[in-house]
Amino acid sequence: MQHPCVILVKPTLSQNIGSVARAMNNFGLTELRLVAPKVDWLNDEARALSAGADSLLENAKVFETFPEAIADLQYLYATTARPRDLNKSVMAPKEIMGPIVERAQNNTAQGLVFGNEKWGLENEDIALCDVIISIPLNPHFSSINLAQSLIIVGYEYFQTTLMGTPSSTQTLEEPASRGDLEGFFLHLEDELMMSGYLRPPHKIPVMVRTLRNLFTRAELSTQEVRSLRGVVSSLVNPNGIYSRRPKRDRLKKIEEKNDN
Amino acid sequence: MQHPCVILVKPTLSQNIGSVARAMNNFGLTELRLVAPKVDWLNDEARALSAGADSLLENAKVFETFPEAIADLQYLYATTARPRDLNKSVMAPKEIMGPIVERAQNNTAQGLVFGNEKWGLENEDIALCDVIISIPLNPHFSSINLAQSLIIVGYEYFQTTLMGTPSSTQTLEEPASRGDLEGFFLHLEDELMMSGYLRPPHKIPVMVRTLRNLFTRAELSTQEVRSLRGVVSSLVNPNGIYSRRPKRDRLKKIEEKNDN
Repeated sequence: MQHPCVILVKPTLSQNIGSVARAMNNFGLTELRLVAPKVDWLNDEARALSAGADSLLENAKVFETFPEAIADLQYLYATTARPRDLNKSVMAPKEIMGPIVERAQNNTAQGLVFGNEKWGLENEDIALCDVIISIPLNPHFSSINLAQSLIIVGYEYFQTTLMGTPSSTQTLEEPASRGDLEGFFLHLEDELMMSGYLRPPHKIPVMVRTLRNLFTRAELSTQEVRSLRGVVSSLVNPNGIYSRRPKRDRLKKIEEKNDN
Repeated sequence: MQHPCVILVKPTLSQNIGSVARAMNNFGLTELRLVAPKVDWLNDEARALSAGADSLLENAKVFETFPEAIADLQYLYATTARPRDLNKSVMAPKEIMGPIVERAQNNTAQGLVFGNEKWGLENEDIALCDVIISIPLNPHFSSINLAQSLIIVGYEYFQTTLMGTPSSTQTLEEPASRGDLEGFFLHLEDELMMSGYLRPPHKIPVMVRTLRNLFTRAELSTQEVRSLRGVVSSLVNPNGIYSRRPKRDRLKKIEEKNDN
């Protein structure tokens, strides 16, 4: 059984990372990934709050970007409030945990994603996740912190693993890894830059997010990603009439331009 | 509906009392009782960690002894590890929450009891409770603190009060009609016939089904279908350099050929 990893995106408080490690340990989760952490996750404060889960902190994997952190994963769950401008299904922990445990039993590589203490997750990151996990809270007082969210999600996960294993409705095909999916996205976006679809520049981030979001929602298999890449290649190069085209990375250039 | 009160017996850390108040607020619990607190529950630390639940702290009722604190209550649940020498039923939060919510709906006066951070509850106090609530944890790492226990018990209580209310998995955007979807499929397949992707003829039905299947699974919105049509148009006609192309229906012709 492959338990989901926990991914903290840009965490800013070392005591929260420590508390997260403690709760992970309580609920049998063992792999921690940190994306661009803003603090030392191995300082005294983090270690004290981990209450003995030091090795989990020491073995944390660190990545510079979210896409790098998820490249080898097949399913991703974003724990966050519902974003206003993303068309993505939102589920309570109790609703989604059955499928998560089932996939863990099938050794599917999964990640539970938590955002930064202040801003939560950014929409670009949420767009790469399959499902939004939203914890039902008192509507008049719905402030909940990172460690608290993890306690609840971890608790539900562990309780569900303890239940009788549900009958499996496993998918027929191998789910695509996030690296494969990212490869398809870059391929598509690159072609759409070339074709003039992605413009004007200030609208590119939203257009890209919309496409990434809808394809992510489809939970594509490795074979389907391959098919889609074939579709894109064929549409831009009908009947292979052009010889091998040079590599392009115009999207990156435009993004850099936007950042400046 | 009378929600259970929360009773902290001899709490020793003000930040824990603050965190408890915050979690109570998150899960709709409003009455806090303190038995012989060892700290100031209204200091800055407690207030800061209550994250806005100050009034709950200010309205806390204080008692000298546990029997005084529970005198008006009808059912008591002790959240603690199982004591060795007491014959008392032990239940997981998920097992006991149904009856607790039912009693709350009947306005039964109930109390959720939590012990001191260091020693938990004493057997004399547990003996006065009806049921022991024990949170299932990783047997190799079962250290859990007061606030964490309360988050889990409070969470289960609130979720159980919400049951029967519909889940929130609806999508934000207007789902595409099947007509819109079919229009996109025909558009895409037509272009893929033109580009030479759909071949050889005997494989076309499977290739078409693969693509239709993956896009259907994404549960596209009307706007997303429009975006995808824009993508296809742009890829086959970069920058709109071709004038309006003639209508094509090659796929139909191939299908007719296959049927014969």
